[in-house]
Amino acid sequence: MTTQNATAEAEVRAAVDRLVEAVRTGDLATLKTIFAPDMVSFDIQPPLRHAGAATKQASWEMIFEAFALPLEYEVRDPTVLVDGDLAVVYSLNHMNATMNAGPKIDYWLRATSTWRRIDGDWIIVHDHVSVPTNFLDRTAAMDLLP
Amino acid sequence: MTTQNATAEAEVRAAVDRLVEAVRTGDLATLKTIFAPDMVSFDIQPPLRHAGAATKQASWEMIFEAFALPLEYEVRDPTVLVDGDLAVVYSLNHMNATMNAGPKIDYWLRATSTWRRIDGDWIIVHDHVSVPTNFLDRTAAMDLLP
Repeated sequence: MTTQNATAEAEVRAAVDRLVEAVRTGDLATLKTIFAPDMVSFDIQPPLRHAGAATKQASWEMIFEAFALPLEYEVRDPTVLVDGDLAVVYSLNHMNATMNAGPKIDYWLRATSTWRRIDGDWIIVHDHVSVPTNFLDRTAAMDLLP
Repeated sequence: MTTQNATAEAEVRAAVDRLVEAVRTGDLATLKTIFAPDMVSFDIQPPLRHAGAATKQASWEMIFEAFALPLEYEVRDPTVLVDGDLAVVYSLNHMNATMNAGPKIDYWLRATSTWRRIDGDWIIVHDHVSVPTNFLDRTAAMDLLP
């Protein structure tokens, strides 16, 4: 790996840490700075494709209203791939959060995010968040452990 | 975009075309050349994380045995992001295939793949394939259209 790419990887890991901290604390202002305006999200909830940072922001607002803060959200051992101004981060994440009106939600999800360095800042231009599908009964596999 | 990156994007699009053709025709030999030995797949079926090209290969073998070939599989308007030797491709894909012993499977999925150029060849080091989750009843959302 080049020195430039090693530096870039460190920058991306710092950006991931900022993202996780913002998710845990419900910090919408920081989240706003992390998602590109024209991002495309393949998010865990329908529809198939969420276009634009405003849609992503609205999803976070719903989550922060539905759950007790801070959210118990862990990003485990993220893998970071980087070249030049493009980076990919993937990891298994643990959501273990208590709904304000309802049960505790405890499951593991898969997250892949694509980042671009624009004017010196790393921002997310695409993400993909999911659980696997049990084809036999078409259920979402929310009981799996890493 | 630099000339180098434009050339790289064309190479990645050609590799995606080869991948799709191999999936349609059940061409395991070609698929073997496209996945990195140490790839990590967040695939549509459990477990959460499939490690290694051999596991991916076994999944394809199961699919090619279960379905009539050629598979009706469409990759719609893939977005390609590239810098240097790293690329990300994402798209909504249509699986519309007939099981040898069972019904037709017709649904849209989301696919994100991360590619590295190694010794001049673009290969997949990570992919993520899913449908969204309906949280209310924990079902897989397999009836969505783009």
